[in-house]
Formats: sequence, C-alpha cells, structure tokens
Amino acid sequence: MSLNSERGRSGGGGSATITDVAAAAGVSRQTVSNVLNAPHRVRATTRERVERVIAELGYHPNRMARSLRASMPGMVGCRILPVNAGTVASIQDRFLHALAESGQRSDCHVLLFTASDALSETERSIALWRAGAVRGVVLYDIARDDARPRELTAAGVPFVAFGRTARDVGSYSWADIDNEAGTAAAVDHLVAAGHRRIGFLGWPEGTRLGDARARGWLGAMDRHGTLAGSHRLDVRGPDNMSSGTQLMTELLNRPDPPTAVVAATDTLAVGALHALQHRGRRPGEDLAVVGFDDTPAAAALGLSSVRQPIEDVGRLIMAELLRLTGAPDPDADGGSHMNRLLAPELVVRASSAPRTAPAPR
Amino acid sequence: MSLNSERGRSGGGGSATITDVAAAAGVSRQTVSNVLNAPHRVRATTRERVERVIAELGYHPNRMARSLRASMPGMVGCRILPVNAGTVASIQDRFLHALAESGQRSDCHVLLFTASDALSETERSIALWRAGAVRGVVLYDIARDDARPRELTAAGVPFVAFGRTARDVGSYSWADIDNEAGTAAAVDHLVAAGHRRIGFLGWPEGTRLGDARARGWLGAMDRHGTLAGSHRLDVRGPDNMSSGTQLMTELLNRPDPPTAVVAATDTLAVGALHALQHRGRRPGEDLAVVGFDDTPAAAALGLSSVRQPIEDVGRLIMAELLRLTGAPDPDADGGSHMNRLLAPELVVRASSAPRTAPAPR
Repeated sequence: MSLNSERGRSGGGGSATITDVAAAAGVSRQTVSNVLNAPHRVRATTRERVERVIAELGYHPNRMARSLRASMPGMVGCRILPVNAGTVASIQDRFLHALAESGQRSDCHVLLFTASDALSETERSIALWRAGAVRGVVLYDIARDDARPRELTAAGVPFVAFGRTARDVGSYSWADIDNEAGTAAAVDHLVAAGHRRIGFLGWPEGTRLGDARARGWLGAMDRHGTLAGSHRLDVRGPDNMSSGTQLMTELLNRPDPPTAVVAATDTLAVGALHALQHRGRRPGEDLAVVGFDDTPAAAALGLSSVRQPIEDVGRLIMAELLRLTGAPDPDADGGSHMNRLLAPELVVRASSAPRTAPAPR
Repeated sequence: MSLNSERGRSGGGGSATITDVAAAAGVSRQTVSNVLNAPHRVRATTRERVERVIAELGYHPNRMARSLRASMPGMVGCRILPVNAGTVASIQDRFLHALAESGQRSDCHVLLFTASDALSETERSIALWRAGAVRGVVLYDIARDDARPRELTAAGVPFVAFGRTARDVGSYSWADIDNEAGTAAAVDHLVAAGHRRIGFLGWPEGTRLGDARARGWLGAMDRHGTLAGSHRLDVRGPDNMSSGTQLMTELLNRPDPPTAVVAATDTLAVGALHALQHRGRRPGEDLAVVGFDDTPAAAALGLSSVRQPIEDVGRLIMAELLRLTGAPDPDADGGSHMNRLLAPELVVRASSAPRTAPAPR
C-alpha cells in the first residue's frame, strides 16, 4: 500500500511523512502539500508555521523534483485504460484530447501511463509525483468506493477526479456528469413521443454509473405516472453486446413487451438493436431504443443516445488541476474544491424518431 | 519554419547550429544528435571528433535539458488527434495505449500534446525536445509527402514514424501496415466465397493510405481474373458515412451491380450498410461488405473488416525509440533504422459470411 511505503520512499535523510508534518503544524495534509507545491495559495502565517515544521522534522519528499519541475514544462499524469473489445468504443480518447488541448494553453502536458488496477495506478501516481515528473494527476472513471481520492490525498498528491465517490465528495475536486438526468431526459423524450411502456436495460446493481442511470429511468417513469405498467421492464446484465441482445430478447418475449427501451450504455443498446434485427423488428418504427454515451457506433447506427459533455469535463478538470498546483490565490488555505455536476444532452436519431400515432398499449 | 528558428533557439552563448557541427565534423546531423543523446551508439573515434567540434563551436542546444533528462523518468512525445465526428471511431486510442504500456516497462512515459496542423506539431516537438521534456517523438498518421520526418531529422530530434513517406524511407525508422495486403486479403476472401463482381469504395486518388488500399483491391482482382467484369466498380469519395451511402447507392443503380464491395475504411463500409438497409437488402446475404480498421463499430454491426496489428506497431515503435535514444550499441554509427511492414488480418463477420451457392453473375 502506498501509505505504508511512504517512509521508505520519502528520500535520503528525513524520515518524517507528510502526515507527521500536518499533525505537528496543526494543518491538513492538503495544506502541507500546498505549501510545497502552491505556496501562494496558503496564508503567510500558515505557510511559515508549516515551513518551520518541515525544517524541524527534516521532511523533504521530493525537493530535487520540485526544483526540476520549476524548469520543465508542466505535466499532469493520467492513466490510459485499455480499449475493451466487448464494448462499442470508449469516450476516453475525447477526454484525453480535451485534457491535452486545454493544458497546453498553460504550457502543461498530459503524461500517459498504464496500470493493471487502481492500486498500481495510485502507486504509480505517487511515484511520478515524487519524482517530479508530474505536478498532479487526473483520475478517470471513479467508482463508488474508489480508494484513489483517499490515498492520493493522504500522500499529498494533487489531483482532480472525473466522477465522485459516494462519500467525502466535499474533500477533493471533481467534475461529474449528471447521469440520472441523462436517462430521465431519455424517458421524457420517449413519453413525449407517445410511449408508455418503456423498459430499462442496465447493469447489475452496485455500480455508481449503473445505479445513477437506473435511478434516472425510475424517477422519470414515476413522475410521468408510467411506472406501474413498466416496473417489471427493468432488466439487468453485464455491459457487453450479447448481454444487451439477451436482455432485449427477454423483454420481447414478455406477454406485454415494451414499445421503447432506455439502455444504460450504447453497448447494451447496440445489443438490443441486434435482437430487434433478428426478429425483423425495425428500430424506431417498431420499437424505440435510446443508448448512453453517444459513441461513434451510435452515430453509425442511427442510435439515439445521451451525450456526455466530456470536452467540458476535460477543460474544467485541467483548469482546476492547474489552479490547485500553481495559480496564486493568497486568500485560500487549500480548503476550496471544485465540485461540478454537468448536464448531459440527448442526441435524437432514427432509433427513437418521434411517432406520428400514439404507441400501442 | 523550424530550421530558420534554430539559431535563435539554440541557447545562451553558442550560436552554432547542429548543421554547423555536422559540416565541421564531416558527419550527418543524426550522428551529432546521437553523440548528444545516445553516445554509446557512436564509434569512439567519431564521437571524439564530434565532441571536439561541439566544444570548438560552443554548441549547446539543450545542455541543461539533457542534465534534467538524466534524472527524470523518460518521456516520448506524441500528438493526439481530435476525434473526427464524421467517422466511426479511430484506432488512435489502441495505439496510444500500446505505446504507453510498452514504454512503461522501460520507465518511459508518453507525453501527449495537441497541434492544429503538422507544422505546429513539428515546432512543438522540437520545442519539447529542446526543453528536455521528451527524449524523442512518435509520428502518427504519415502522409505521402509528409514534411515531419525531414524537419525532425534536420532539427536532430529523434523520432519513429507509424507509416512512411513516399521518399527517403531508408533514412529514418518506421513501422507501417501493409495496407495493400489488407484489401487484397478482402478480395481473396470474397472470391473464395463465390463473388466475381466485387466493387471498391475508396478515397479520391492522392493519399498514401487510400491509394495503397485501392492498389490491393486492383492487384487481387487482376490476379483472380475478375477485373475485366469489375473495373468500373471502383468508385471514390470522401471518408465519411454519407459518402459511403452515396457510393454504394451509385453501384446498386448500375445495370450490372456488384455482389460484394471492399471499402477503404469502416466509415465508408458503414455508409454502404445504410444504403443496403434503405433498399431492404441484407448485408452478407444479398451483398457482401468488407471494411478496413476493425473499429468497435464494425464489431457492433457484424461488419467484416481488415484489422491493423496496431498494438504490435505501438510496441515496435516504442522499442525503436528507446533504442535510438538510449540503448548502448557500440557498433552503430546512427545509420541503421528500423523499417518494418506488418501484415493486417481479415476479421470475417456476418456482412461477408461465406455463401453456400455461387454468387449470381
């Protein structure tokens, strides 16, 4: 674990950790980190106290690194995830491009690295930061109980997250998509087009994204008074195309099948389209389908889909990371965080084209 | 242009350029670059001569940068291209992941940057290299008359290219896909399935990739003796879906339409599938379609497609860049380059499922 290895890694001479410094100075670890990396953001009296403690305890996590960093172009680290063969494309490339483009305006670049899991991602982030290779890191794809924000905070590594954990959301900076609003917008659109029996193809319960998208469907169905006729049309399976085909087939075999479905991802939605084609049913005409993520496959298939404003997320995250690690802000004591929830946008295509007649009951 | 600005950028004190050093020492600029960045790769006598000239002329392009570089994790630069909304997904994310993953094994990371065009990409590459932020760069998506290899060579920036220009291919390191073999394999597959009238949906003449893929179709059709009946089935348009739909419709309207088509990209192939659906023709049963790139959309649509071994390309390129910029090789004088052509692989799906009966003539 990263915390256990901190003493060993903290460099020749000093054996104090950032936790020791924070405790002795009576400040948070984030403030110690700010004194080291963004001193202008810390009040002068606090800064002097922390610097005194740093000198007394002989703490120097990455002194050489900091002097190197001062003379290099800025760099923020970001893990790149492998492309998952079972899904219909990720939106990671759009995110990375947005990060790189907005960072560059401040002469800051993105350092890509790979990791086998979240733990090794955290360890590598800490190592890169201590080596002075990055001034902070970006966390992508945050899970509900994600340990990364906690561990990076403990290690003093500046970071901004795309997504947020279930707890402690006020203690770090993040930007997130309002996933619930996305599936709710899909239901609103389908109800406006005359649909009443609207199914939901989702992930098994227990994931942050999957549950939020399910809640959006549920809340909107309830609000429209259409839940009573559709509550059993909520079916779940893993996020791959054959699962989408299977779930859609299951719904089509019901005595009272839906006239429309909202899928938690484009991958499940594409699987659903396959099921329709197999039955000779026409998407949009015989049954409406809406996906989530507006992947290139959605555009290719004429699939309506909820689009995440991921370029905006990338820009916000980079700006916040630059602010946390560099911009002078004499009034701040490291306590303010960016917490931004962005609304997604429904892109309507042929798979859910408005119906001229009301949907069959 | 990068060369003109070299004097101004070459740093305080010395005003000599790498060209001056190369001329005075009677070696290539690449050898001067190797003396600076990979001295073990240069013969001792050559190295001493170049070092003497460097000292005499007071040449120091990035002395501080090199000392910084020695103490930082290695970094190679790579431009990330924006995701093109008109196409069905790029394979850039697979390439970047492969680069990052293989570099990491040698403690080398990928620095992402964006650029509005090839010229600003070159300028940024040179600036990053001079600042010591990268030890070299990766060139993605090489055009026939691409100026980047020439300009980076002139500036002494180590690089490896994915793709190759029409000329000077022996003067720098590259890995490329045998695009011609890819479309030829698609034709072989369709002929084996009983097709004789096989169309080609391609880009307008004049691009490296587009022309290579057209040549593959042409050569294989000629080899199978099927060209005489199909030579007018070679149609061209821009690389977007509506263009693919238009080209396919044009072929379907011919008095003697094809029974199969090979498309230069998945994007054109997806457009062709739309044209078939619009006519109520079933892909694979009524008309076979093969795309190129095996994008996630191809898997989603059951589209047969030629798959580039892009993970292998990423690994080869990173290994070569590490070799050029670091690995000791006392016998080399900077003259050896990696020139690797990799064969793509045809992935057969429902859109070109083998026919049981011979195709109608």
